[in-house]
Amino acid sequence: MKTVFIKGLGLIGSSLARAIKQEHFDYRIIASDPDSNSIEFALKNNIIDSSVKGFEKVEEADFIILASPVSQIIQDIKALANLKLKQDVIVTDVGSTKVTIMKEAKKLTKKGICFIGGHPMSGSHKTGAAAGQIDLFKGAYYFLIPAVNKQRISELEYLLKGIQAKWLLVNSRQHDQLVTQISDLPHVMAAALVNNAQNVLQNDPIGLKAAAGGFKSTTRIAASSPQMWSSIMVDNKTLIAEQLQVYIEYLGKIEKLIEDGDQDSLYEFFDHARDVRSKLD
Amino acid sequence: MKTVFIKGLGLIGSSLARAIKQEHFDYRIIASDPDSNSIEFALKNNIIDSSVKGFEKVEEADFIILASPVSQIIQDIKALANLKLKQDVIVTDVGSTKVTIMKEAKKLTKKGICFIGGHPMSGSHKTGAAAGQIDLFKGAYYFLIPAVNKQRISELEYLLKGIQAKWLLVNSRQHDQLVTQISDLPHVMAAALVNNAQNVLQNDPIGLKAAAGGFKSTTRIAASSPQMWSSIMVDNKTLIAEQLQVYIEYLGKIEKLIEDGDQDSLYEFFDHARDVRSKLD
Repeated sequence: MKTVFIKGLGLIGSSLARAIKQEHFDYRIIASDPDSNSIEFALKNNIIDSSVKGFEKVEEADFIILASPVSQIIQDIKALANLKLKQDVIVTDVGSTKVTIMKEAKKLTKKGICFIGGHPMSGSHKTGAAAGQIDLFKGAYYFLIPAVNKQRISELEYLLKGIQAKWLLVNSRQHDQLVTQISDLPHVMAAALVNNAQNVLQNDPIGLKAAAGGFKSTTRIAASSPQMWSSIMVDNKTLIAEQLQVYIEYLGKIEKLIEDGDQDSLYEFFDHARDVRSKLD
Repeated sequence: MKTVFIKGLGLIGSSLARAIKQEHFDYRIIASDPDSNSIEFALKNNIIDSSVKGFEKVEEADFIILASPVSQIIQDIKALANLKLKQDVIVTDVGSTKVTIMKEAKKLTKKGICFIGGHPMSGSHKTGAAAGQIDLFKGAYYFLIPAVNKQRISELEYLLKGIQAKWLLVNSRQHDQLVTQISDLPHVMAAALVNNAQNVLQNDPIGLKAAAGGFKSTTRIAASSPQMWSSIMVDNKTLIAEQLQVYIEYLGKIEKLIEDGDQDSLYEFFDHARDVRSKLD
């Protein structure tokens, strides 16, 4: 019997709790969340065993999962560094930016506490424990970033086995760059496309009503949580701004090709994209 | 019994032919296409009744459908203006840029020939008559741009009834702006996102393999035909370059907000996009 402490029982935290309970029915889950609705829902539905305020009873935990927004995770790591913990506890998190979090986690590793950064690449625009799903991460990539060595990765993977994610071991810098390209920039761009089109077409009686499948799939993720995405932008602002600038400059080059009517170069541009994109399916 | 002449029996032309045949089994379809495979396939499968070279027998047509790439449609309109046609023929096209085509079509309307510009907002990355489908346009928007008056629109809609498209009557300028926003820019942006990400991540052993649902839906249309999209860019270069510049400037503003860590404004940015996008489903 192990004890799992989950700080932050929202969509992600409660989904992990569900999967842990199903896979390890004898494990005890303690959770802490400022949202009393999430806690009540989770207790009532046997997703967790008990609830506490803040980090009460965290010294009993074999695993600590920090599943709050990134700014809170940073605070939680600071707090944990000043609390008494089991010496062989594994601390992990689910934050979407890893360089800052892994830097903060040194406060724990210096004390000999094992920290493994984590980031599941799946989500929903819904929030709160009631929105959690046992299969939220099924088949999704789940980044793991070991702070010191990789030895205890398998223990964490065993704990989270029930989520059926695909593990990817990376370092924090590599993680942030990958996520900026495959998740952050697409979100900025999709939202920008929607707002820009709506603005340009605001006086057209048809306007976005004519949007068909292409526009819809390209902008599907523009319906994501503004709370979550504005936080991610700020948490990872330096890298995202830098990479967005690279993307903008690239778009500028394409604009020049269009202006020049350079069909051969435009063919290459679209052909290369088709080639790369086709291989992703 | 009416005679329909289709110039260009590729994906779109052959799909229209299939739907016309099904709806009006007594209509005669004559087609012309430089690709002998498409013609053979269509004859063998009773999609058309006969084939000709160029515009042979076009004087027998009650409807003429120009379904070649835009540059060829322009040439075809020029050619038709010098041919003898039935006085009450309706000429239409399926080109994706309408200002240039409608301008060219004045050569016909000056002679009293009815021209109705058309543009079905559906397609496929496949090409050729064998790739056509009777339901390719089912539920899709189909823009119609009457050159002179709207009186004969209903005749064209009746001819194409079998495709089950949703008709949208617009003027040529309005059409080009709508299509630039809801189709052209998304295609540029999706292809740019793929190429840029692949370039930035080229030395990462994981790279685009980590791409999840969000990246995939945002870039789905990057797998479209490079031939078709490089042509569209050139055909409509002035408007697309101009509107792409507006989009790039808007992205620049968002980049500034990210750099500044302006969470409130970023929240508004994502919230507005969510609001607009959610209403499209």
